Amino acid sequence: MSDQKKFGLPARRAFLTSGAAFVGGAAASLTGGGASPVMAQPVGEPVRWRLVTSWPRNLPGPGVTAQRICDRVKEMSGGRFLITLYSAGELVPALGVFDAVSSGAAEMGHSASFFWQGKMPASVFFTASPFGLLPQEHIAWIERGGGQALWDELYAPFGIKPVMAGNTGVQMGGWFTREINELDDLKGLRIRMPGLGGEVMRQLGATPTTTAPGEIYQALSRGLLDAAEFLGPWSDRSMGFYQVAKYYYSPGFHEPNGTGEALFNSDALDQLPDDLRAILKEACRAENGRALAESDWENARALQVLQEEDGVEIKIYPSEVLSALRRETATVLEAFSQKDEMSSKVYASATAARERLGPWMAVSMQAFMNARSRGE
Amino acid sequence: MSDQKKFGLPARRAFLTSGAAFVGGAAASLTGGGASPVMAQPVGEPVRWRLVTSWPRNLPGPGVTAQRICDRVKEMSGGRFLITLYSAGELVPALGVFDAVSSGAAEMGHSASFFWQGKMPASVFFTASPFGLLPQEHIAWIERGGGQALWDELYAPFGIKPVMAGNTGVQMGGWFTREINELDDLKGLRIRMPGLGGEVMRQLGATPTTTAPGEIYQALSRGLLDAAEFLGPWSDRSMGFYQVAKYYYSPGFHEPNGTGEALFNSDALDQLPDDLRAILKEACRAENGRALAESDWENARALQVLQEEDGVEIKIYPSEVLSALRRETATVLEAFSQKDEMSSKVYASATAARERLGPWMAVSMQAFMNARSRGE
Repeated sequence: MSDQKKFGLPARRAFLTSGAAFVGGAAASLTGGGASPVMAQPVGEPVRWRLVTSWPRNLPGPGVTAQRICDRVKEMSGGRFLITLYSAGELVPALGVFDAVSSGAAEMGHSASFFWQGKMPASVFFTASPFGLLPQEHIAWIERGGGQALWDELYAPFGIKPVMAGNTGVQMGGWFTREINELDDLKGLRIRMPGLGGEVMRQLGATPTTTAPGEIYQALSRGLLDAAEFLGPWSDRSMGFYQVAKYYYSPGFHEPNGTGEALFNSDALDQLPDDLRAILKEACRAENGRALAESDWENARALQVLQEEDGVEIKIYPSEVLSALRRETATVLEAFSQKDEMSSKVYASATAARERLGPWMAVSMQAFMNARSRGE
Repeated sequence: MSDQKKFGLPARRAFLTSGAAFVGGAAASLTGGGASPVMAQPVGEPVRWRLVTSWPRNLPGPGVTAQRICDRVKEMSGGRFLITLYSAGELVPALGVFDAVSSGAAEMGHSASFFWQGKMPASVFFTASPFGLLPQEHIAWIERGGGQALWDELYAPFGIKPVMAGNTGVQMGGWFTREINELDDLKGLRIRMPGLGGEVMRQLGATPTTTAPGEIYQALSRGLLDAAEFLGPWSDRSMGFYQVAKYYYSPGFHEPNGTGEALFNSDALDQLPDDLRAILKEACRAENGRALAESDWENARALQVLQEEDGVEIKIYPSEVLSALRRETATVLEAFSQKDEMSSKVYASATAARERLGPWMAVSMQAFMNARSRGE
């Protein structure tokens, strides 16, 4: 069989049903086809990227998100763009993701921006800030309110382009071995709460710690901690905290959002063909809603089980405590935003977004939820 | 110059920078390339689809969403998949979209499912239902809670596959020429509110109408209507309602969600190459978050202007009224869901999703919003 017959007509039909745009081989040599104009797709190896993540492989939430992005990119590119995922520690440590993408050791990373606050304090605002933006508001700020441009500016010196890629939603306030009935109950409280939330707690007399996730359970059960925040019901239940702390407090004032972060090496991104670059970005964008849906769905179920089977008591912080948390948050954030110019700019931008979106969210979502739940 | 030279090396580099996977021509004839294995992408015309919509071209919100999906698909496919948008009336009337996609007169439609309730009562639940699911909850129901399977089942007899594609968010309760201070104020109220929300209002003594959008302003200004709901601040302000009704009520109990609907002719969808089908679906999915961000951002601004410049008073329905609306909603929905088997199944599924998600949303988003806004 001639090559012409083998690869020629009915080539179009074959393409339309196979959808495989790249089929291996290194280069094509062509001959013209007589009367009809002949042009053919030059053929090459698929583009191959390495994705380093800060998560164990298939960790519910972010780990699953990272793998789904690889799968969707492969599917949408018809196999022309293959991204291989390396979980935390496989190629670089969990917190080595940013540097690996910056140096080009990996073309892409999946992580969370607040991990880089030692390098750039302003990065924390691209994950969450106490009494800050909810997932839907955070996405609006990044997409419409100037957030993306500031995020780009912050990472540009490192040769990195960031985008949102997944969201784990609003967090819970944490697990407590005793009730919080008044502000004084926070005094001397040993609570695992890293970051800005922990600083707010410190202002109110608590002693915040940054206990490693794997050690929280032991610390609670031995009485070395009185309380600990981690994530939400889905993750927290799998950690078994309900066995050693019966009060689960809401709201997660310290982290009302959980944006996953995709990091691209800027040179690698620039070298992608336009269509593959568009595919990559759209896969990340689609993951925001898909991941949030998954988190909400699983958090909702885990919450039910915690209440109905595990004997956990769900509590809302008393009004007096919330007022104090709000007040100290303002102080802590104001001081934090003075750390450097970018922190100041990003804080101002996020605050402006909250001030714009807040009144609308109050008369839409909040008013609706309050009206709906009054009957329940 | 030989064709071989013209289209051969450095073909790969040209592809990697152009990103144009299809460059016209009808068929390729190839010859083998000696030692290295040679395979080439058969070449054909781009896939061309017609998209009929229920919106004026570039209508803020849904019209922009429909065009953006076309743009993203073109970009991600490197021009191999071209979708031409026809606005309402250009190819078929606004409400002819479903039938056009069903018959194959168009391969794709963009609309809202509640338009088809005459044909299929259950379709209303895939847009919104009174005191039903918020955008984030609706997406979780469709993606995770069995909603998609029921939506597929409902449209399958018509040869249509539906997916979510954009979201205009929570609506407002409507414009009122006088205040609603107690339940009795609804008696005799002539209010423009189509659909299930209108039926709920009727139970409470109001007279709901389905006044066409273009006639609402006149009817309010002439005193033929006492109140009218339309959409949210962004759209409503452009309609000028604030000039003829000073009270803008919240919440939009009747439509807490605004999912845009993409309709695919099933045969056309099946005939797409796998990569183009994946691209099409991901573009629709990404649009959910992108459109909601845009709606929230613009609604927030319009709300500010309405309050600060247009002298509009934002009001929340009194508690007594909300309780009555909730009670009558239960009655109306219960009756509605008895219309046919699918209505009953879909209502049960959406209700189960609300019961699962509600308590989680209450301790996460709602508790957070209440805590955050208490200080404002």
